[in-house]
Amino acid sequence: MNSLARKQDLPSLREQAVAVFRELQDQISARVASFEPSVTFCEDLWDREDAEHFHGGGGRSRILTGGSVFERAGVNFSEVHGVLPADMGLKLVGKAEPQQFYATGVSLVFHPLSPMVPTTHANFRYLEVGDKAWFGGGMDLTPYYLFDEDAGHFHRVNKEVCDRFDPDFYPRFKQECDSYFYLPHRGETRGVGGIFFDYLGKEQPELLESFLPFVEAAGAGFIDAYFPIVERRKSEPFSQAERDFQLQRRGRYVEFNLLYDRGTLFGLRTGGRIESILMSMPPMVSWEYNFQPAPESREAHLISVLKSPKDWLADK
Amino acid sequence: MNSLARKQDLPSLREQAVAVFRELQDQISARVASFEPSVTFCEDLWDREDAEHFHGGGGRSRILTGGSVFERAGVNFSEVHGVLPADMGLKLVGKAEPQQFYATGVSLVFHPLSPMVPTTHANFRYLEVGDKAWFGGGMDLTPYYLFDEDAGHFHRVNKEVCDRFDPDFYPRFKQECDSYFYLPHRGETRGVGGIFFDYLGKEQPELLESFLPFVEAAGAGFIDAYFPIVERRKSEPFSQAERDFQLQRRGRYVEFNLLYDRGTLFGLRTGGRIESILMSMPPMVSWEYNFQPAPESREAHLISVLKSPKDWLADK
Repeated sequence: MNSLARKQDLPSLREQAVAVFRELQDQISARVASFEPSVTFCEDLWDREDAEHFHGGGGRSRILTGGSVFERAGVNFSEVHGVLPADMGLKLVGKAEPQQFYATGVSLVFHPLSPMVPTTHANFRYLEVGDKAWFGGGMDLTPYYLFDEDAGHFHRVNKEVCDRFDPDFYPRFKQECDSYFYLPHRGETRGVGGIFFDYLGKEQPELLESFLPFVEAAGAGFIDAYFPIVERRKSEPFSQAERDFQLQRRGRYVEFNLLYDRGTLFGLRTGGRIESILMSMPPMVSWEYNFQPAPESREAHLISVLKSPKDWLADK
Repeated sequence: MNSLARKQDLPSLREQAVAVFRELQDQISARVASFEPSVTFCEDLWDREDAEHFHGGGGRSRILTGGSVFERAGVNFSEVHGVLPADMGLKLVGKAEPQQFYATGVSLVFHPLSPMVPTTHANFRYLEVGDKAWFGGGMDLTPYYLFDEDAGHFHRVNKEVCDRFDPDFYPRFKQECDSYFYLPHRGETRGVGGIFFDYLGKEQPELLESFLPFVEAAGAGFIDAYFPIVERRKSEPFSQAERDFQLQRRGRYVEFNLLYDRGTLFGLRTGGRIESILMSMPPMVSWEYNFQPAPESREAHLISVLKSPKDWLADK
């Protein structure tokens, strides 16, 4: 049971968070499905106890493959609990002992077929480790061909949502996103960013519950931030060379997820469900040796932007 | 200069190792080229000083792309030096201080076009860290469609080479290979193994030089172990479904290299040349959600073998 204070007859924070995340999964998958008349989501309900990892829980994984807009779209809900190894206890709550944990969240990665439509990722989660609890999450956009107005739109929606709660949120979370989604070996960010936040309420347990409405609003914001871009770009023509560039850039996505992503490594480390964790992998990827984009090309422009994150709302 | 005892007028162990590795690169790339009348290796000579990582050195990267047999074949020679961070010093030589290092070696990964021809990787290296020095290396085979006689041949050649030096080598190094090329999150080995050895001479400096002839023989053994398999399988017909299975299994190769491979992570960590390090990535890869091979199929057979490493020479 929730170790936090619980008001009688009211749903616990766990229960409230679970309800928010499930609802978000439904809304987002409905929106994806609206683009795809001929393919449907495949849903896996899973439930497991893994004695070896002192780990249990379940989830609802939804994945759509081979759509006309989305080559792959995965939206997961999960609720897991167990015992974290001592080194992770040390890292997360400063105690070098195995720690009880509980985690629930929704996460998604969409890999569009067209290189003109950006890839996106979002994640919203609630965690309890030992006697600490917090919210985390965020969303980011990974274009292959850069349309400044799309990046601007994505950031503007995020800023509006953040500003409704705290004027410091957007600048802080935008900065955290740029720092987090960074590939040091390439000297590039993964994409044009968005917002990323973690440990909300961890050191201020009295504020913890108040962060749930923000997380809920950010989730709804994702829908407004991303889908209008899909609408606008899905019929844009593209060439085979542009598709090839997309497959190659997807290689950077794989590199980030397997080398650096906390969620992926946490999941693999704690014995999570492999297929749900690696749902973030692109369906088709290529690595080309020593690719150099032509000078002044759109490909070169993208890479130069990824090397020095921009303030997308500078002129607004 | 080499910190080890050096006999006057004789080449140092570094110089001898460099000569062996360069020659091996030449022989192996000539053999690959003999299969490819219409494409040639592209050679990059590189030389760099990276002040940020206290790191310098150079190398000769050779890569062949789009061949009729090899979709990608990369063979690298490199010779680098610098200072390792304290945590790597602790791990490698038990001293939690930055350590001078020198490393030279040859490494290769071949990704054949046909799923009937196995992927292979080999690496032979000489390292000095602080006041320790050692040899390491090995080779392994990653088939997509399993032919027992190919796996048997690969292991037999390796055993013959090992036995010329020490009857304990093959069983020990075969076992180390199975343990090393293992994906815990999949519960699978990367392929059918081969040999893997490390730290030869590290604790017995008086024997260090005597390991160079073994490493040289193992390198020559690679040629005899691998290319006859290519010869035998390159004209085997295959279907699109078999090609798709190969692309998907290549995803496991990427997972291993980015999540676990010491060489890849060492290279990325110490500021190595990205393009040479990631030359091991397959040219085209796919991830399919929750793939399940048909019962009794060749795909299911491969996966079951990878779940429990075999003694390939049991009946000989």
